Amino acid sequence: MKKLNHIPTFKDIRETHRGIQHMIHRTPVLTCESINRKAGTKIFFKCENFQKIGAFKMRGASNAALRLSKEELNRGLATHSSGNHAQAVARSAQVLGVPAYIVMPETAPKIKVAATRGYGAEVVFCPNTLEDRESTLDAVVARTGATFIHPYDDFNVIAGQATAAKELIEDADALDIVLAPIGGGGLMSGTALTTKALLPNAKIYGAEPEIVNDAYRSFKSGEMQFNDRIDTIADGLRTNLSNKTFDIISTHLDDVFTVTEEAIIAAMQLTWERMKIIIEPSCAVPLAAIFTYPELFQSKRVGVILSGGNVDLGQLPF
Amino acid sequence: MKKLNHIPTFKDIRETHRGIQHMIHRTPVLTCESINRKAGTKIFFKCENFQKIGAFKMRGASNAALRLSKEELNRGLATHSSGNHAQAVARSAQVLGVPAYIVMPETAPKIKVAATRGYGAEVVFCPNTLEDRESTLDAVVARTGATFIHPYDDFNVIAGQATAAKELIEDADALDIVLAPIGGGGLMSGTALTTKALLPNAKIYGAEPEIVNDAYRSFKSGEMQFNDRIDTIADGLRTNLSNKTFDIISTHLDDVFTVTEEAIIAAMQLTWERMKIIIEPSCAVPLAAIFTYPELFQSKRVGVILSGGNVDLGQLPF
Repeated sequence: MKKLNHIPTFKDIRETHRGIQHMIHRTPVLTCESINRKAGTKIFFKCENFQKIGAFKMRGASNAALRLSKEELNRGLATHSSGNHAQAVARSAQVLGVPAYIVMPETAPKIKVAATRGYGAEVVFCPNTLEDRESTLDAVVARTGATFIHPYDDFNVIAGQATAAKELIEDADALDIVLAPIGGGGLMSGTALTTKALLPNAKIYGAEPEIVNDAYRSFKSGEMQFNDRIDTIADGLRTNLSNKTFDIISTHLDDVFTVTEEAIIAAMQLTWERMKIIIEPSCAVPLAAIFTYPELFQSKRVGVILSGGNVDLGQLPF
Repeated sequence: MKKLNHIPTFKDIRETHRGIQHMIHRTPVLTCESINRKAGTKIFFKCENFQKIGAFKMRGASNAALRLSKEELNRGLATHSSGNHAQAVARSAQVLGVPAYIVMPETAPKIKVAATRGYGAEVVFCPNTLEDRESTLDAVVARTGATFIHPYDDFNVIAGQATAAKELIEDADALDIVLAPIGGGGLMSGTALTTKALLPNAKIYGAEPEIVNDAYRSFKSGEMQFNDRIDTIADGLRTNLSNKTFDIISTHLDDVFTVTEEAIIAAMQLTWERMKIIIEPSCAVPLAAIFTYPELFQSKRVGVILSGGNVDLGQLPF
């Protein structure tokens, strides 16, 4: 497979899906009667919390890695992230037998550092500002020749994330609505591209915490907006859109909904209690949107991407 | 289907499985690479935490209910339990459109009371001693004419629980070992009967907390033993064997293993973290046994019944 330098077509997404088969799980699609009753709808949950490394990020990172030339790949992969993307890059490098260099803020949770090192990556610490992250990453890339894999502003990553919705739609069949959370917008962009191709009449909605509503404001205003604060519990959704993801999202989405922190925590707890599956706060945001705007989802068949399950069990919000 | 008054044959178990189809989910069998690597084995987890009411108990209770005469059924179902069996009896009655009467100690967790009432049952409180439970239950039965469904000392219940292992073996295929937790012994008995029929060469092991090791001592001594204390975190396994379950367990099991509280908590946490599924402490006991006696499981294909996922999220041991 060659590197993608354009918005992925569905042909690209299909090729990506074949290409990354050995790097990912085909995760199950689950339903829950009691949540359906409560929401007055029929929800198909695509369980990317069961994905390798515990999140959909494995899809995008592995596709970006597999599309490098042999020479590039051998020099290794690099990124800055303290979240699921870090683990996805580290694990992809491990499977492919090449080095990984992960830049993390000194304040990163120990559990995330340990998990990333557990996949054989070298963790490089930096002060907790965006500037420090970027300059530290630049230095690592200069030193090692590794390729930087951006967590979302990369068409290869977007094509990888798009495969989650492909599996969801294959398994759940006709859906009226497809819903995903928006952080940097990689998952949302991929979900939108796949859904437009496979279900051209379905509504495509994004869901975002009110506190970090850059995508909501960007979508409504037609111009990229940025977050002033990042103190949402949904730690995977604190980032702003990028040029590539803003472009795809503003073209293809039907709407973006925001939800309160209370709604996120309630949706997370409901999922744990009723579905007996562990989802991280970011992952509860779409379900929170369904309960916040119930009239839009009444009696619909709704596909929801459950993005991940990496949560610190010692720091639960309930 | 008629009431079973003998140790269930595999023909009875097959008939039971067909009979209860509309009352249960066929739960998935999951595997986890990182747990397999850590244990040096290949474990097939039968996820009864995803069963209706969140535990395997739905299988036995629904079978016992379906085998009542129409007259008996119409008078309703009764039991004493503050655990998963209470919810299973309540839910079975609700599905079948008949009343349920559940005797619970005044000290029962509110969440369990609410869940049982949520299934439409009448909860009758009593002081927290076995004598009070039994006398209160007798009074309820005398007043209502409802049929008492024992949580395990009942061949109909045992035949229902046996269907979990049937599905596990159908889905996981050849297994060298099948492992279940032992509380009152209903699940263990059913698991043993099915495994003997379908995999006559497989080892059948039970697992039990050290603190409530009545089954271990009963199995080793050949005579029924009883627990002196019940303060294990595995609240589903605090009960003693009954005559019927002791008989089946002492005939068919290859061994019983006991595990420490620390091993139970560690296995529970590992399952939450790695598999992203919610299991209750009782449910972690078989995995704890695998890590306590690793040499017995090396390179084997091991089937494990994950019994349930009903846990108070406000009271986690980690």
